[in-house]
Amino acid sequence: MTVSPHPFTADVARNLTLNPQSPVHSVPVQPSRGVLSPLGIEQVRIDSGFWASMQTLNSTDMIQHCEEWMERLGWIGNFDAVVDGRIVADRQGREFSDSDVYKLMEAMAWEVGRIGDTALDARFEALVDRIEPVQEPDGYLNTRFGRTGQQPRYSDLEWGHELYCYGHLLQAAVARGRTRGLDDRFVKIARRAADHVCDAFGPDGIQSVCGHAEIEVALVEFGRMTGQARYIDQAKLFVDRRGHGVLKDIEFGRAYYQDDEPIRDSVVLRGHSVRATYLAAGAIDLSIERGDDELLGAVRSQMDNTLARRTYITGGMGAHHEGESFGADFELPSDRAYAETCAGIGSIMTNYRLLLATGDMKYADVIERTMYNVLATSPGEDGRSFFYANTLHQREPGIVPAIGEVSARASASMRAPWFAVSCCPTNVARTVASLGAYLATSTADGVQVLQYATGEIGAELMGGAVALRVVTDYPNDGTVTVTVSQTIDEAWTIGLRVPAWAGESAVLRVRGEERQAGPGLVEVAGPFAVGDVVELVLPLDVRVVRPDVRVDALRGQVAFERGPLVLCVESVDAPSVSKVDELRVAGTPTVGEGGAVSVPMLSIGLPDRAWPFAADTAAVAVGGSTQVPLVPYNRWGNRGPSTMRVWIPTSSDVVAGG
Amino acid sequence: MTVSPHPFTADVARNLTLNPQSPVHSVPVQPSRGVLSPLGIEQVRIDSGFWASMQTLNSTDMIQHCEEWMERLGWIGNFDAVVDGRIVADRQGREFSDSDVYKLMEAMAWEVGRIGDTALDARFEALVDRIEPVQEPDGYLNTRFGRTGQQPRYSDLEWGHELYCYGHLLQAAVARGRTRGLDDRFVKIARRAADHVCDAFGPDGIQSVCGHAEIEVALVEFGRMTGQARYIDQAKLFVDRRGHGVLKDIEFGRAYYQDDEPIRDSVVLRGHSVRATYLAAGAIDLSIERGDDELLGAVRSQMDNTLARRTYITGGMGAHHEGESFGADFELPSDRAYAETCAGIGSIMTNYRLLLATGDMKYADVIERTMYNVLATSPGEDGRSFFYANTLHQREPGIVPAIGEVSARASASMRAPWFAVSCCPTNVARTVASLGAYLATSTADGVQVLQYATGEIGAELMGGAVALRVVTDYPNDGTVTVTVSQTIDEAWTIGLRVPAWAGESAVLRVRGEERQAGPGLVEVAGPFAVGDVVELVLPLDVRVVRPDVRVDALRGQVAFERGPLVLCVESVDAPSVSKVDELRVAGTPTVGEGGAVSVPMLSIGLPDRAWPFAADTAAVAVGGSTQVPLVPYNRWGNRGPSTMRVWIPTSSDVVAGG
Repeated sequence: MTVSPHPFTADVARNLTLNPQSPVHSVPVQPSRGVLSPLGIEQVRIDSGFWASMQTLNSTDMIQHCEEWMERLGWIGNFDAVVDGRIVADRQGREFSDSDVYKLMEAMAWEVGRIGDTALDARFEALVDRIEPVQEPDGYLNTRFGRTGQQPRYSDLEWGHELYCYGHLLQAAVARGRTRGLDDRFVKIARRAADHVCDAFGPDGIQSVCGHAEIEVALVEFGRMTGQARYIDQAKLFVDRRGHGVLKDIEFGRAYYQDDEPIRDSVVLRGHSVRATYLAAGAIDLSIERGDDELLGAVRSQMDNTLARRTYITGGMGAHHEGESFGADFELPSDRAYAETCAGIGSIMTNYRLLLATGDMKYADVIERTMYNVLATSPGEDGRSFFYANTLHQREPGIVPAIGEVSARASASMRAPWFAVSCCPTNVARTVASLGAYLATSTADGVQVLQYATGEIGAELMGGAVALRVVTDYPNDGTVTVTVSQTIDEAWTIGLRVPAWAGESAVLRVRGEERQAGPGLVEVAGPFAVGDVVELVLPLDVRVVRPDVRVDALRGQVAFERGPLVLCVESVDAPSVSKVDELRVAGTPTVGEGGAVSVPMLSIGLPDRAWPFAADTAAVAVGGSTQVPLVPYNRWGNRGPSTMRVWIPTSSDVVAGG
Repeated sequence: MTVSPHPFTADVARNLTLNPQSPVHSVPVQPSRGVLSPLGIEQVRIDSGFWASMQTLNSTDMIQHCEEWMERLGWIGNFDAVVDGRIVADRQGREFSDSDVYKLMEAMAWEVGRIGDTALDARFEALVDRIEPVQEPDGYLNTRFGRTGQQPRYSDLEWGHELYCYGHLLQAAVARGRTRGLDDRFVKIARRAADHVCDAFGPDGIQSVCGHAEIEVALVEFGRMTGQARYIDQAKLFVDRRGHGVLKDIEFGRAYYQDDEPIRDSVVLRGHSVRATYLAAGAIDLSIERGDDELLGAVRSQMDNTLARRTYITGGMGAHHEGESFGADFELPSDRAYAETCAGIGSIMTNYRLLLATGDMKYADVIERTMYNVLATSPGEDGRSFFYANTLHQREPGIVPAIGEVSARASASMRAPWFAVSCCPTNVARTVASLGAYLATSTADGVQVLQYATGEIGAELMGGAVALRVVTDYPNDGTVTVTVSQTIDEAWTIGLRVPAWAGESAVLRVRGEERQAGPGLVEVAGPFAVGDVVELVLPLDVRVVRPDVRVDALRGQVAFERGPLVLCVESVDAPSVSKVDELRVAGTPTVGEGGAVSVPMLSIGLPDRAWPFAADTAAVAVGGSTQVPLVPYNRWGNRGPSTMRVWIPTSSDVVAGG
């Protein structure tokens, strides 16, 4: 697989003479090569609809919520405790709590860049005030290690997370640098930290890696932003070292932190799913900057295999609670789906990089699926509670955590305000704040609209500015209307993604003509005049979906999808049964008023047996079938505790009854 | 539920004026009340067949293997290191490694009692020589805590396992005391330890419990053996304290160590499955000695619910690797079956106590199922390798651990010689050595043969001695011939258990007559003369078994059983497919020469898809059906790495093909 250089950065690609003065956008990822070029959050504005509401909720609640909790629990206060000399006695939170402060700051930085919130900017700077004095003269910055009375620096690379924390520091600094410029004080802190990492772990330094990948993807991007090859060199050292057993063996095995085999040799993602996806994202970035198409091909193949065999219908990744890890191929149990919110975000990060590199719309499809069914599932409607794990089957109604209670990360609880390990809320916040960047891309002569939301998209093509106005009620409605609001004289193309789930049913209307479109990227060639309209109609009938026969956990069950949304049944919508496990699909779904979906289902009697295995175990239907509503999975649990299923058994195990 | 006193100990039951001089047997459990009375290993001898081979393997290999490994790894050497004053620097193994030394000693003690092996007795005494000087003047005995440079005594009740270690010390001392008498030196060590526990944790002592239940069941039995009510009082304190949140909350939740709710209030076993079953066994013992039928009823109901909803077809318990714990009701995934060998043993312990208390043959059925399909599955044919977890579905061929390598406890490996946490091998050894005790019981006027093996059973009835000679090739053959070899003038009964799986098909032949028998306890009334024969014929046709419709993980699959054996398919027997996951059941099983079982199966093609969920995912049959052998689950993996399934999909997801 060969990736062509970006048109506008082709000259700086292979030899990495990056120029920080070259046009950069407010993007989390700025590859120097690739089929598609990212657009920044200053170029893509979401005005209304599903994702605008989520961004507003982030603005009004999520970011503030994260800040309040980390103040309350003393995770931010750890920095003050260092300055006051009382950190050994007073330190709060887990060994990696600094990272969540940095992820909060990344969210703040993108949000300041997005809407210019001066109050939020002041809060960001106030955090910098507290962090800056903690940095040591050689650039080391961590509240947990290195002082008298603490464990020595880098004495526990397996679990200490020092490099992981730097990674999130650097990513926050990328957000700040790309929205405020490289002279920003926080960027300078990050630069000193990055230099320290290169000093400490360089060719003559510690010959090891961090137990949690993250520094790799951060160093490459920080190198891109600052134009410093040294940081990318260091990322390469980390990527190349991992997989050779440089970390200790642990009960989960070295696969947990991907130190079991080199990434170039792997065939599929494995081990801890957040670690695996973060590493994959970093390796892709490295491959792009170093022209290492073999590495890119290896990671792409790993992701392809992961999507084919180890990904939930929601886009969720990670089938094991133990080790928060991927399971084996086709091991996708609904009830034990870990599908950590952060792994979903790691998947979006990785698939976005593959999308930019290859232009394959398949990766944009995965991003859409994961955005709507993992990212959007985590936060509750209040913006102040979150799922850490995203089960596809809730057997018993979950517990609502007490107000102010810190939850176990993957408990039987409903969305919780905070967790002992609380990586997910800040990860959601930073992703939602930068979401605009994932919606559209450009090429030398075109703009590609990849995710659909009402708003504006601007891009520079051939030295001129073009702009599109997108109007849609997607995903509630399948019609997307794209109007040219600014154009250039030259011919250019408007690309629209038709998701694979649309099959052959999408319709494109342009210049009075209508035609079947996609799946894949559908391009309309210009030249365009202001006011020209391209309209895409995606089919929003409800799809009945069956699992690959190798998925043991899903045999005899079906799921329902509508547009990009995975649907589910909740017990609050099925008052005739005590648990949704008593329901059996007995017909085809219908879409009613306002898009309400329902399916005929039977209720079954479930006699208690002393022993659950017998020659005949057929269940008996109780009464006739009734219409049971299906709701978007991402909103489940917002009406109080309930039982829930995404995959619902068919009635093949039922015999007629009373 | 009311339990009647044992005939021979009725006078000493409720008020616990136990008399250590009263007739006791070489039994692990000697309840003072109950429907059935245990027979000791000196009364039940197994001569040949399945379990005799296992006992021989224990004699020749398993016990020695455990001793060699613990010498090699320094777990036994820890006691020497204490004496030499170098324990802080030199201690080896996990915090609970002392317990495995004691479990080894329990196995040795039973084995010495069973076959009078003087060389083994000398090895036992040599261990006592090394342990005795480690005990402190106040009775405290642990290599891990309490010395300068170590954590203080009882400073980590959640994870420190000090009381757990005492529990195994006491159980080993019960084995020694019941085979060698109470004057034994090791019994005296245990008595000092038990007194110390009562001093430290008594009414005025530490108001807490051990993170791993075990001391409870051990204290009751040690109290029974020594006639000391104090130990049973202490067990009561521990049982009553647990469940009130006396231990710290942990990520797994307090249910992990059953400290989430009092055992009297629980409805089903939950949390760590070994902890849960050990606690249940101790609570039953306590209920028996204290006439607490409410407690007995509560635990019985918990086990009944656990058998109905949380037990694998093998008898295995524990559906989660995370926390080695029970899952929710009907959460029984084959591929993630943890089904720890020790949990199976804990289940045998608990069900044996319920059997003695209630006389309900259901519990003997469970013991049989668990003996044949969990206990017997763990050790390999070499007696020097063991399964820790007992999966019901091996997706990829397991790795054979390198010789001398310590394995992770539940890795993807085949049977391993030893584990970092190596509770299972010693647990198998102690159980197999004392297995005779589980085979038969007596009442005032009868002997009950509960598990079938060729051998001799003796009992005292009405002041006289009776004896039975049992001859059978069970489970290879269903005929059990019981001959009276010693009798008394009075009428007495011979009871034979007909397992529930026999349905209405078992046949009893007695005095020239033949009749349908059971299920349950079938009794033949005497008087008997020497040479009288009772013959039971159990049906050994292969049974096709289906799961309760609530078990999502097993939908569309069937399992096969023959007699007490659960069968499975191994890839070494299906050379036409690369993995057993490609097989589909396409007919009914047949039994051929020498009991060889086979089933017609189809092979299916498994096309790779980029995404595993679609409108149509039916598999295509490749060729016609072929006869595929099924083998006993307990012997799987003995012919090298293979893939394996207990539950095999039917062909309902297959369409005809090429």
